[in-house]
Amino acid sequence: MQLIRTIADLRTALRAERSAGKTVGFVPTMGYLHIGHLTLAKHSQLNCDVTVVSIFVNPTQFSPNEDLAQYPRNLPHDLKLLEEQGVDYVFAPEVDEMYPDGSGKTSTYVDVGDLSSILMGALRPNHFRGVATVVSKLFNIVQPDKAFFGEKDYQQLAVIKRMVTDLNQPVEVFGVPTVREPDGLACSSRNSLLSAEDRAAAIILPQAMQLAQTLVDQGERSVSVLHQAVLDKLQQEARGEVEAVDIRDAETLAETAELLTAPAVLLLTVRFGKTRLIDQHVLRF
Amino acid sequence: MQLIRTIADLRTALRAERSAGKTVGFVPTMGYLHIGHLTLAKHSQLNCDVTVVSIFVNPTQFSPNEDLAQYPRNLPHDLKLLEEQGVDYVFAPEVDEMYPDGSGKTSTYVDVGDLSSILMGALRPNHFRGVATVVSKLFNIVQPDKAFFGEKDYQQLAVIKRMVTDLNQPVEVFGVPTVREPDGLACSSRNSLLSAEDRAAAIILPQAMQLAQTLVDQGERSVSVLHQAVLDKLQQEARGEVEAVDIRDAETLAETAELLTAPAVLLLTVRFGKTRLIDQHVLRF
Repeated sequence: MQLIRTIADLRTALRAERSAGKTVGFVPTMGYLHIGHLTLAKHSQLNCDVTVVSIFVNPTQFSPNEDLAQYPRNLPHDLKLLEEQGVDYVFAPEVDEMYPDGSGKTSTYVDVGDLSSILMGALRPNHFRGVATVVSKLFNIVQPDKAFFGEKDYQQLAVIKRMVTDLNQPVEVFGVPTVREPDGLACSSRNSLLSAEDRAAAIILPQAMQLAQTLVDQGERSVSVLHQAVLDKLQQEARGEVEAVDIRDAETLAETAELLTAPAVLLLTVRFGKTRLIDQHVLRF
Repeated sequence: MQLIRTIADLRTALRAERSAGKTVGFVPTMGYLHIGHLTLAKHSQLNCDVTVVSIFVNPTQFSPNEDLAQYPRNLPHDLKLLEEQGVDYVFAPEVDEMYPDGSGKTSTYVDVGDLSSILMGALRPNHFRGVATVVSKLFNIVQPDKAFFGEKDYQQLAVIKRMVTDLNQPVEVFGVPTVREPDGLACSSRNSLLSAEDRAAAIILPQAMQLAQTLVDQGERSVSVLHQAVLDKLQQEARGEVEAVDIRDAETLAETAELLTAPAVLLLTVRFGKTRLIDQHVLRF
């Protein structure tokens, strides 16, 4: 495994791989890796000749009042995990390498209109603009054939798919199902920020999603009924502050009143202390 | 020469060229070609193995009140000129091929902040956002090694260079000096929209630029003095309505008070009837 810190070095290494006819798979991450990330890398390794994992905590997707400084980091441990798994390249640039104009500032942004301003985009203005911009930059640097993203960040995946289509970016984007802890909580780097009590309480998220699926299995099709049931369930856990419960068209994220033919997705955002947890479940019916 | 109408066909053709080790040069145009465009293509042909010229009148860079419908078009004549010059590929997509969501609409934009809102960007809100977006799309479709733009559209060139740097787009951008008619008027597709009287009157632009250079040659370094002299000269021609006269840092387009060490550029925008002509001259001193 090669650890690469500069854009120029990565371009040189990957140019050689492509010249040798190798396909390139790419997994962008913010580090503090867990089994969810490693699963993404595994998908890349199974589908591509060469796998690149990037580790970069991107400042342009955090608002000034958000947890950029507190975001957990552990590069040595990340490298150990990726080495063990046989990943080919790790790209871990400093902030100035990605944003030479100064810490996390850029004059050019990629903005994925409507999809960026709804749902989590309403809670975190400019978040998805920062995501779309850094992912565009990384795509242009890595020039992957395929890129792999977790379904846990469901809206992010939708934003990136839309961006790739709209801008004709020459990369195939794959969503990979959410990997969960044994008790059902979605794997997330932010789980490490939870107190033991909050970590235990957080299983209310998968429980609420399970409840919604059970109601759907029993024939419930009304989005407002499902929404209320999920909200009631989440509010049984006093440690969590419910920020958002949404049931949307799974493709467009448009609002929907009833589960009819198009798949729908349940999106949850619940805050425990300062830590915002998100999760998603595509409702089967 | 191959005329290609779809993104998929162009990707297939260029994949074969790249596999054969060929470098790709690219000249994006809105058609109605003149010697300026052909000069850009010639630069590409001299510097790259394969040259692609695109012809696409991009709706997202026109405001509703602008001249999209009136913009001159003549594809058969364009193809004849490019064929004669030995260009390899012409990419001439329909609007729906580039913007499948409907005529000239997209949800994703590339926005080059500050450089897009000043100067011509103040006169034409959203213009450079449309330019940056379509050029990004075309770069992603063609994946050129080198791309060639005219210096006449000076701010456009600055916006594109900034975008390529900020987004790490894997393409080298070249600015090519403005090609002029025998009387000094910059070649432009819009010249064809001028009445005979306005066409004759339009030489006031190169005359004003010549005056500025003469003053600089005589030792004038004050931007406000030069600005006033150019304005006075342009206003001698009653047929032209002066929209903008600016002398800026040639690199950053920042305002400047005196010609000191950094190169400066004189930018002109003059309207004749409904037709807006622009020109530029980098002041030598």
